[in-house]
Amino acid sequence: MKKLLIASTSTLHGSGYLDYISEKLSVFFKSTDTIIFIAYARPSGLTLAAYTEIAQKAFDKIGKKIIGLHEFKNPEKALKNAKGIFVGGGNSFVLLNELYKLNLMQALKSVIISGTPYLGTSAGSNLCGPSIGTSNDMPIVYPPSFEALGIIPFNINPHYIDPQPESKHMGETRATRIKEFHHYNSQSVLGLREGSFLEITGDEITLKGTLKARVFKQGVLAYEINSGTDLSNFK
Amino acid sequence: MKKLLIASTSTLHGSGYLDYISEKLSVFFKSTDTIIFIAYARPSGLTLAAYTEIAQKAFDKIGKKIIGLHEFKNPEKALKNAKGIFVGGGNSFVLLNELYKLNLMQALKSVIISGTPYLGTSAGSNLCGPSIGTSNDMPIVYPPSFEALGIIPFNINPHYIDPQPESKHMGETRATRIKEFHHYNSQSVLGLREGSFLEITGDEITLKGTLKARVFKQGVLAYEINSGTDLSNFK
Repeated sequence: MKKLLIASTSTLHGSGYLDYISEKLSVFFKSTDTIIFIAYARPSGLTLAAYTEIAQKAFDKIGKKIIGLHEFKNPEKALKNAKGIFVGGGNSFVLLNELYKLNLMQALKSVIISGTPYLGTSAGSNLCGPSIGTSNDMPIVYPPSFEALGIIPFNINPHYIDPQPESKHMGETRATRIKEFHHYNSQSVLGLREGSFLEITGDEITLKGTLKARVFKQGVLAYEINSGTDLSNFK
Repeated sequence: MKKLLIASTSTLHGSGYLDYISEKLSVFFKSTDTIIFIAYARPSGLTLAAYTEIAQKAFDKIGKKIIGLHEFKNPEKALKNAKGIFVGGGNSFVLLNELYKLNLMQALKSVIISGTPYLGTSAGSNLCGPSIGTSNDMPIVYPPSFEALGIIPFNINPHYIDPQPESKHMGETRATRIKEFHHYNSQSVLGLREGSFLEITGDEITLKGTLKARVFKQGVLAYEINSGTDLSNFK
């Protein structure tokens, strides 16, 4: 039975790494003391070791040991044996590229479907949709495909931010970018604001956190959904 | 002799399309009454025809006729015969994908090097660097490569915006994204603020507009350069 938390962000403004979701994680990962950390998204170009240390510090608070997937000689086997997986944020292109390069996409998908608890934040959440086509990241490496795990049938836009009417910046708003996405892609997109996350248990998908999320469907005006909304049939 | 204007944006806040640069364009395109418009970046998913109309309205003010490249049966020949080219902004992935699909990259590069005056804004400016790897756009289509025209030896980051210390948003700042870029790519990046543009005449590259630009070099702390700076040897 699938078991995932798909979060917009790892960190809320003014608080520490994973702090806002720490209690939740304690319950979510209750059946294991050890979590495999996939550090490949490398935010700010951090080394895999440095990023893993940051994750370890956050999980220390709930008594869990973190082991970087990059520390294993056989990462595919490590995924298969994992009792919990955390894919941290950073750059979605780098993350996807590395997973393809290491030939780990199928193994990762397979263990998630089999029920290994999976936490994704930001790029780690993008990874769960059909593609990384609604990532906010800079295309700093060229992955062999934009196709992602497809655990959920819709794309995530993490760190979703509303248009700011007072802004004088002429770059596209997030909403405009997602509208452009729907000229070339049919899957729906869920704009997850920072603090929101999806909880997936089996086939049930629920919006969690205190905020609303924004739904973008091809050919339909975008609209808001409340926390608690059942998204099991959303696509 | 190469002749290009590479602009951060088509439009400044509170003014019309290309208004801020209109006088400059009148001089830049003085040797032709007709300009070929490459509309493929399709901002907001506009049709090619609708986007071309917007460009035509702006060029009406300086008495130039715009013809969309998509209107030609043989676009390669149209590029070869062009006396002026304008590549408008929108989505860099879509723009690059279309140019590769139509097999026009080499022809476009060749006429620019031969001296056909080229105006690029936003995505049309990204196109001039070695790659679109410092685009701000959403990866809504998967192009066969991120490699761009390489007319200049450094990448452009158009619509460059400084980190906003008062922001509570936890998405990466532009500066962080470019720092991440330099973990995987060696070419320098010029952050062009809205209103800035590069003027290229032969081998001379000069920063124009009233604003400073921000220079990002691999392994070097980012720094500012003034308008008027000679970038001919910048790489």
